[in-house]
Amino acid sequence: MKGKTIEDICIGDKASLARTISESDIYLYAGITGDTNPAHINEEESKKSIFKGRIAHGMLTAGLISAVLGTLLPGPGSIYLGQDLKFIAPVRMGDTITAQVEVIEIINNKIVKLRTDCVNQNGEVVIEGFATILPPKNRGDL
Amino acid sequence: MKGKTIEDICIGDKASLARTISESDIYLYAGITGDTNPAHINEEESKKSIFKGRIAHGMLTAGLISAVLGTLLPGPGSIYLGQDLKFIAPVRMGDTITAQVEVIEIINNKIVKLRTDCVNQNGEVVIEGFATILPPKNRGDL
Amino acid sequence: MKGKTIEDICIGDKASLARTISESDIYLYAGITGDTNPAHINEEESKKSIFKGRIAHGMLTAGLISAVLGTLLPGPGSIYLGQDLKFIAPVRMGDTITAQVEVIEIINNKIVKLRTDCVNQNGEVVIEGFATILPPKNRGDL
Amino acid sequence: MKGKTIEDICIGDKASLARTISESDIYLYAGITGDTNPAHINEEESKKSIFKGRIAHGMLTAGLISAVLGTLLPGPGSIYLGQDLKFIAPVRMGDTITAQVEVIEIINNKIVKLRTDCVNQNGEVVIEGFATILPPKNRGDL
Repeated sequence: MKGKTIEDICIGDKASLARTISESDIYLYAGITGDTNPAHINEEESKKSIFKGRIAHGMLTAGLISAVLGTLLPGPGSIYLGQDLKFIAPVRMGDTITAQVEVIEIINNKIVKLRTDCVNQNGEVVIEGFATILPPKNRGDL
Repeated sequence: MKGKTIEDICIGDKASLARTISESDIYLYAGITGDTNPAHINEEESKKSIFKGRIAHGMLTAGLISAVLGTLLPGPGSIYLGQDLKFIAPVRMGDTITAQVEVIEIINNKIVKLRTDCVNQNGEVVIEGFATILPPKNRGDL
Repeated sequence: MKGKTIEDICIGDKASLARTISESDIYLYAGITGDTNPAHINEEESKKSIFKGRIAHGMLTAGLISAVLGTLLPGPGSIYLGQDLKFIAPVRMGDTITAQVEVIEIINNKIVKLRTDCVNQNGEVVIEGFATILPPKNRGDL
Repeated sequence: MKGKTIEDICIGDKASLARTISESDIYLYAGITGDTNPAHINEEESKKSIFKGRIAHGMLTAGLISAVLGTLLPGPGSIYLGQDLKFIAPVRMGDTITAQVEVIEIINNKIVKLRTDCVNQNGEVVIEGFATILPPKNRGDL
């Protein structure tokens, strides 16, 4: 697992990862963040909500973006500077989410800006956003 | 657990939650997102990095913000519209992080904008950011 | 929980444990090993595979064999020397797997060789194999 | 994530993954397999054992081999046919284990045999073994 340096990265470079979001993902995320909002872990309450059932935490789905950035593009050795997120549509248990990132800008030959979107199995965008990353200085740096 | 409606919320309202980030939090987060970047789960590799050891995923720490918003202010029934994040400093196993949110703007008597920061046990800011939230329409809505 | 010594063990001794493999078992196993192969955690991709859906990691199911050996026969105090495995058929979420072990050889009055199979709720063998174990020296040893 | 077909694979090809084994890895593995042998989850009992403290389940460490095979070489789309394991030395919490696989034989231009070893941060071999794998028929197959 070696990350890409600024020299390895071009505008237009893309990477993605996909995962079916499970009930256990949502329950574990609730546990490790303390976000025990009934919308995520109470089926009876959440059935009365606008979403008509339990949904994943937006920030859990957003974590797939971090996985792409941290393992693929730029990959290990990157320093995560910032992330902007818009939560567009709910994610439910059983949805298969693809987090896709694309390099859209290289700032001062040092910092990479990427478009970061998550789409579900029906092609609907569920999260839109942008990330800024400092890639590893040398290939193989962590 | 009942969320606050727009009528219940004033500029300057604050809430916070704190948690000591454990090794198991980081390992579970790696598992549920697939972010197995060695910076988080490989002590030997991460010792050679700029951070000199394993660090928490930035987006894991950011999840504490979601926990405050979803359980306290505005609380259950809120719809999370967006989150901007700047990752300022690393978080290590054993660090106790306080996520604190403060209402800074009410837009069209409908949407709430909050400042959202995470600070460690030494008072250092580790994450800075802003959230936009649609609070529940009626008290008790989910 | 006390393990059996070589004196307590006879050829033909058997033990078994059964467990319904859950989605959360598979997701947690993916997390603790880093084996995020889409065959296990991506329903959409895995539907296109030869198995037509997500399957358990073979080595997860094989862990049930280790559970029988480590808790029942010979039990606590055993030293696990080796395990050979053949993966015969896929295991899906909801399958109830019985791991059954049988002592087939005692080597030099010291080491025990066991046949170790896993079968599903329909009686189909999903894993075949053999284990070699050094039982505890004294009853109650760990 | 695309796996390698038999045409893509040569004798001598290698891949590896590393992970620091955490207490939570061991406890979760105990939970998902039911292997609650005190050697793994009882510090007081295990201090009296030959290993002088809690150790990881051998089959948990062996799961890292599965992770390399299923994500890197041959990768997604592979069918795992068999795995032979010899447990050489104990793995403790905090040990950083590298699972490394190397193609040693290609059988009938169809099946791949790999040497599969796990070594700790001191270079000690903790598991030795061999895997047999049917790689994906077509690149991109799952």
